[in-house]
Amino acid sequence: MKKYGFGVDIGGTTCKIGLFETTGTLLEKWEIPTNKKDDGKNILTDIAASLRKKMNDANVAEEELEGIGVGLPGPVRADGIVPMCVNLGWKDKDVSKEFQELMNGVPVKAGNDANVAALGEMWQGGGKGCDNVVMVTLGTGVGGGIIVNGKIVSGSNGAGGEIGHIIVNPHEKTACNCGRKGCLEQYASATGIARLARECLVGDHDKTLLDNVGEPSAKTVFDAYKKGDGVATGIVEKFAEILGNALSNIASVVDPEVFVIGGGVSKAGKPLVDAVETYYRKAALSSCADTRIALASLGNDAGMYGCVKLILE
Amino acid sequence: MKKYGFGVDIGGTTCKIGLFETTGTLLEKWEIPTNKKDDGKNILTDIAASLRKKMNDANVAEEELEGIGVGLPGPVRADGIVPMCVNLGWKDKDVSKEFQELMNGVPVKAGNDANVAALGEMWQGGGKGCDNVVMVTLGTGVGGGIIVNGKIVSGSNGAGGEIGHIIVNPHEKTACNCGRKGCLEQYASATGIARLARECLVGDHDKTLLDNVGEPSAKTVFDAYKKGDGVATGIVEKFAEILGNALSNIASVVDPEVFVIGGGVSKAGKPLVDAVETYYRKAALSSCADTRIALASLGNDAGMYGCVKLILE
Repeated sequence: MKKYGFGVDIGGTTCKIGLFETTGTLLEKWEIPTNKKDDGKNILTDIAASLRKKMNDANVAEEELEGIGVGLPGPVRADGIVPMCVNLGWKDKDVSKEFQELMNGVPVKAGNDANVAALGEMWQGGGKGCDNVVMVTLGTGVGGGIIVNGKIVSGSNGAGGEIGHIIVNPHEKTACNCGRKGCLEQYASATGIARLARECLVGDHDKTLLDNVGEPSAKTVFDAYKKGDGVATGIVEKFAEILGNALSNIASVVDPEVFVIGGGVSKAGKPLVDAVETYYRKAALSSCADTRIALASLGNDAGMYGCVKLILE
Repeated sequence: MKKYGFGVDIGGTTCKIGLFETTGTLLEKWEIPTNKKDDGKNILTDIAASLRKKMNDANVAEEELEGIGVGLPGPVRADGIVPMCVNLGWKDKDVSKEFQELMNGVPVKAGNDANVAALGEMWQGGGKGCDNVVMVTLGTGVGGGIIVNGKIVSGSNGAGGEIGHIIVNPHEKTACNCGRKGCLEQYASATGIARLARECLVGDHDKTLLDNVGEPSAKTVFDAYKKGDGVATGIVEKFAEILGNALSNIASVVDPEVFVIGGGVSKAGKPLVDAVETYYRKAALSSCADTRIALASLGNDAGMYGCVKLILE
């Protein structure tokens, strides 16, 4: 194993880049803007230039690099091709091959951003020490990553871990971003929780702290919940029941050692995990009922960590 | 790779045993009764005696054996321990180790019967040529097996692929065998389909072929369905919708290349697959909507095949 690796988590706005020791220590991190002009054709050259500069500044020789892992906001097929990445303007792009050529042959591997975040949390975060992890990212949407025997389950169409699109309510009337109705994401994301809150706040309802916060958000709901607010408790219980039930169904498919919950919503912390756990334990098959539910611990760096883990496989 | 392997599929009543070429050809198969007396302590010695006899008769030397794969009706942990197998009377048993000692050191691997059946269908059956397969066994209950990158996902508690216990109807009043309510198994198994039929046949209902068959079964329902019977069509559509929706949710977790449908109910054949497929395609995330749904093709031999594949890994 060589000494260093780079993790590059490409987002729609910025690329998060980290220089790591392959033992798992993050030495330095920085960001560069994601240049989406001309169908994102300069993104990889910009990153390559930034990596070269860092190698120069930090005295890292090419021969000391185990490789470069790249995460991106779209599906990555098993053969490394990115069929479509709307956020970056890419289509049918062989990211690993192109980037490897730009980097003078240093090995490059690419993965979906939610999947590499899961891998990162497994390696050095909330799932450390486990080989079988389901990561649930509660952000604007709900993302996920499935790790089995230490490896990402990317799926034959790149849809492995798309757990935000498990249908949990066939009676839903409003459409999800994916066009279908009743997806987990419609209830368990930040926007989903805000929607549950708005539904509680229209018409007659008990007096609540949420009456004074303007447009409700996942944060204001959890803040009120922590203060014992009754209406907020109702909303959180509904969220927790839907998510806990969904996790129990995922357990009947891949039966992980741990569920790791990350994303902006997870900043609500232990009270959120406790609520989800209560419903999970009630709903799960008895053999899986004790599965641990943990908070993610790497925050926005999870993707970079996972990118590095990707090249160690 | 050595020339031969044995596949041993231990059931509650009989052990199905096959002598295979490791290329995948089944040379001979036979059965012996499963001796469950004294907490099943003679099961492995009986099988060992039967294998020794066959090796003698068929002129197979120990040195020509790649190994022996064993399937059994209970969970098998990643470390090879069988924590509990009610049907055989076993508890905390290291099946591989014990059997390997009985067989003079020939390598032995053990797996759950539903999982090895999935592996068998991947290797030489309905999922041949694929590395990522979800097998659904519609029998008295609903079993399953998840194969990712050619390997069984047995799960950290041996509950990987327990897809019969995905909860599909939180409003169900009747309990499943597992003690929970609304499991897939309660609608998509042979007993589940018979139950759906009974519910349609109580009280007022349209005239139907099912009025003349006595107690309805999955077979009589599908037979009537194939003749265009209206009531049977309603039952099959309900079954197909529930199963198709469940498969679409599984696709959002592991995104297989193919779903393989086996078990006694699958003898209904292509009309069953077509009905499930219709609902699956409607319900699935667009990227997974074209995933193939195939019939299992190895029947009761799937487990033996999978046992052999287990030792080739």
